[in-house]
Amino acid sequence: MRYYPVHSGYPSYPEVNDAIETVFAEHGRGEVRMPPKVYVEFVESGDFRTMPAYLPALGLAGAKIVNVNPNNRARGLPTVMALTMIIDVETGVPEAIINATELTAMRTGAAGAVASKHLSPRQPATLGFVGAGRQAEALIEAMAAALEIEEVWVWSRTEKSADAFAARYADFNATSTTIQRACDCDLLTTTTPSTKPLVMAEWIHGGTHINAIGADAPGKQELDPALLMNAEVFVDDLSQATHSGEINVPMSTGRYDPARIAGTLGEVIIKEKFRSSPDAITIFDSTGLAIQDLAIAALAMDMEDGCELPFP
Amino acid sequence: MRYYPVHSGYPSYPEVNDAIETVFAEHGRGEVRMPPKVYVEFVESGDFRTMPAYLPALGLAGAKIVNVNPNNRARGLPTVMALTMIIDVETGVPEAIINATELTAMRTGAAGAVASKHLSPRQPATLGFVGAGRQAEALIEAMAAALEIEEVWVWSRTEKSADAFAARYADFNATSTTIQRACDCDLLTTTTPSTKPLVMAEWIHGGTHINAIGADAPGKQELDPALLMNAEVFVDDLSQATHSGEINVPMSTGRYDPARIAGTLGEVIIKEKFRSSPDAITIFDSTGLAIQDLAIAALAMDMEDGCELPFP
Repeated sequence: MRYYPVHSGYPSYPEVNDAIETVFAEHGRGEVRMPPKVYVEFVESGDFRTMPAYLPALGLAGAKIVNVNPNNRARGLPTVMALTMIIDVETGVPEAIINATELTAMRTGAAGAVASKHLSPRQPATLGFVGAGRQAEALIEAMAAALEIEEVWVWSRTEKSADAFAARYADFNATSTTIQRACDCDLLTTTTPSTKPLVMAEWIHGGTHINAIGADAPGKQELDPALLMNAEVFVDDLSQATHSGEINVPMSTGRYDPARIAGTLGEVIIKEKFRSSPDAITIFDSTGLAIQDLAIAALAMDMEDGCELPFP
Repeated sequence: MRYYPVHSGYPSYPEVNDAIETVFAEHGRGEVRMPPKVYVEFVESGDFRTMPAYLPALGLAGAKIVNVNPNNRARGLPTVMALTMIIDVETGVPEAIINATELTAMRTGAAGAVASKHLSPRQPATLGFVGAGRQAEALIEAMAAALEIEEVWVWSRTEKSADAFAARYADFNATSTTIQRACDCDLLTTTTPSTKPLVMAEWIHGGTHINAIGADAPGKQELDPALLMNAEVFVDDLSQATHSGEINVPMSTGRYDPARIAGTLGEVIIKEKFRSSPDAITIFDSTGLAIQDLAIAALAMDMEDGCELPFP
């Protein structure tokens, strides 16, 4: 068994995007075994999640254990920290443990990039960002590897964060702006931990694709429910999205009927589902799948040697 | 973050039994957060299970990832291999990864010992074993630390295994015998991977306590359903036992009504539930709980230093 600290570099976004597209295609074909992630909440704050999966065609199995604690920022610790274990599919022997903290942000960025590539009708695209943290950075970098970016509008509750994001991505003509202006784009990405709608339906024009990334636990939502009613919603995984994705709150109030879901990202990739017209609004409701974690863990293991741990 | 290979020795059964009793008491008081374990089955053979839990009163959280592959024996590998991750309850930081292969057998043995201590009415006790593998060894050793053993009768499908078990535990007057003779005892322990009843109702006399250990996945069963109908069944955890414990098969055929369950081991420990009379037949239906894995991982971490792993 080997431990991979993933300190000597990360896989490139072109490879990560490809790997993520491959596992979503497997998911679209119904060829993955992946129970919904399981949440355990701490008494004080935060939670941890266990995410097992098995990709028979890729001979890849394992589980990620990831915590989310919004109070960690004040402690100088990452909000999200994760380990992935890889298990041999023949014998069940634990083969590897991978530091998945940075990989978690990257694989989420790649899912947004793959969704954008398949669902956003316009290129080059103007990008809007609501939220300007680590997750937004991973999204813009993954998208830059998947499509041509014309300009970028970014809003954050903390103006300083939006300004820093705009400065960092000046090469993409990035500008810090109001939330409404950021929403007036071809390709909107929301990455906040909000539990109340931030993005109003009347701000979004036809033909926009939205990557709704922030909502990944019960009670979280970023989009006006009226927007969901006007849009074609593609989820990463049906059971996870109804439990903890963008649609979870409007579903729990009875406002959103899960029968309205247009399909999964995997079904879009294998061309079983698609946006109905260039003028439709499409939403990718991302909760984060264990198969993404396995895919990126396999790439990270190819990049460094890791260290041997005695087992069993 | 530290890795503990658990190669320099194991905690003693008196301490393990105490630790297991403590976490079951917490469970009985409803003070643990523990979603049911999640199974992923491999295409060829075997499965792996993710088992998260959080014990607020003990400040202990984490998850075990464990595989079960009956074909491993032929490969010279353990049938069951496991890793436990311990997570800091304040920040979610992964603190430790523990080789839990041997600890898994030990914590199961301890649960049987604690159940026997609280539910078996006679001491010193004659012990019967159906199944003579690694799990049976852990059970007899844990029970030896919890109660006085008069003699031992052991049966295995492989006679050689039963003979070896009898020789190993000669100090307890252990004898290899027929299954029916092994069942004629005060305290019966079944540890086989059977999917068909092995222990017939008419072989079991009043006042016997049975530790039903083998059934830990859907489709597994060791006991005649008629025996369950005559007995007081105490489970380790209601959701897990109904899904994958001894009662899962007779429940799925409608033969066993889960309303008949007499209580949980935790409720017995805190004296909210108990066997109704010395002449009743009691059964402890053990599936194995994540809280047991956290308890024994904490003991193992106290015993050795482990090695530092760079994280994050």
